[in-house]
Amino acid sequence: MSTKTIRVQADLLATNKQVAAEIRRELRSRGILCVNLLSSPGSGKTTLLEALADRLKDRIRMAVIEGDIETERDAERIRRKGVPAWQITTGGACHLEARMIGKVLGDVPAAIDFLFIENVGNLVCPASYDLGEDLRFVLLSSPEGDDKPAKYPQAFLSADCLILTKTDLIPYLPFDPARAAAEALSIKPGLRVFMVSALCGDGMDALVEYLVEALERLRSGRA
Amino acid sequence: MSTKTIRVQADLLATNKQVAAEIRRELRSRGILCVNLLSSPGSGKTTLLEALADRLKDRIRMAVIEGDIETERDAERIRRKGVPAWQITTGGACHLEARMIGKVLGDVPAAIDFLFIENVGNLVCPASYDLGEDLRFVLLSSPEGDDKPAKYPQAFLSADCLILTKTDLIPYLPFDPARAAAEALSIKPGLRVFMVSALCGDGMDALVEYLVEALERLRSGRA
Repeated sequence: MSTKTIRVQADLLATNKQVAAEIRRELRSRGILCVNLLSSPGSGKTTLLEALADRLKDRIRMAVIEGDIETERDAERIRRKGVPAWQITTGGACHLEARMIGKVLGDVPAAIDFLFIENVGNLVCPASYDLGEDLRFVLLSSPEGDDKPAKYPQAFLSADCLILTKTDLIPYLPFDPARAAAEALSIKPGLRVFMVSALCGDGMDALVEYLVEALERLRSGRA
Repeated sequence: MSTKTIRVQADLLATNKQVAAEIRRELRSRGILCVNLLSSPGSGKTTLLEALADRLKDRIRMAVIEGDIETERDAERIRRKGVPAWQITTGGACHLEARMIGKVLGDVPAAIDFLFIENVGNLVCPASYDLGEDLRFVLLSSPEGDDKPAKYPQAFLSADCLILTKTDLIPYLPFDPARAAAEALSIKPGLRVFMVSALCGDGMDALVEYLVEALERLRSGRA
């Protein structure tokens, strides 16, 4: 039983990787930078995307694919910002897979710069699935605690950037951002670390600048 | 492929259910009330158990099985409260299974009243696995947002109690506890709702009283 389970899982991941590679090729050929956002439920992924939409408006064009087990809520929040959004409801599944993104890709307008994918809120399973993104962000909100990287290492190991969110709450919490960052960096040396409060705006400028530079690198073939 | 995956998953859940039924029978025969705690990472499961340890001390005997992907951290925190604790590290797996609990059960002293199981921090996958518990608590911390029950329905549907945690942070957050409770109750009518701040102590007395009454019911055969 155990051997069978492992083989099925390995087949699934290999197929997923192939589909993800096709998506990555397709998006790069269109000059679109794709970012996959991973975190626990309620770490602030949608709120971060809303804040990015406000800041990029009239300057950079973005679109969002939202992943959730149930409800259209997050896509509706993004659409209210004037940003095109598609909701994938997994109906129980704990992560997005590349084939789900592939189904939506034809609807994504050619004339966009960034495609953000908000994964299902889960710090474990989504880490194993490449969605064809160029960058993976893992979010960790201050109320979750600074001890999380070592307890959920795969999400941090697979990420390009760590976004410490809800920094406005730090004064009310037993949370040490330096400890969280150091622990994540011990798992993934070279991880870029940002501290943001999407509600207050702190740290958002640095994140926007990083994204714009990454887009320029992609388009000049230096990605 | 898809059919095969589903069959393997169904077999796994059926086997898990059998093992869980044996664990439930065994624990009830020893007069031990077992509680399975489910939530996102960082919702306050370990902090709630620490607060329960402080309150039950010298009165009720408890033990804790801790589930995490990596690290012994949570078991160490519980042991510092003078409570016996066993750490199960799943090494990547996103949930506990009954067979993992079964392996530890022989080490749990006969003379305890409560066995708490802290599941892996994940609001999705653990909901499908019966661990042989008498009561299932789902925790939702105020910073996660009041929109979570409808987005992660299975965890709330399968629970006996909803514990809204970190209530001391509500003044600093866009969080409406009435909305969170109403949404959870629309998924699972009859769900018991508690509001607690384990750090400040608010609401802990009501939770302790509920647990003690549940233990009395179990021992008088009215469970």
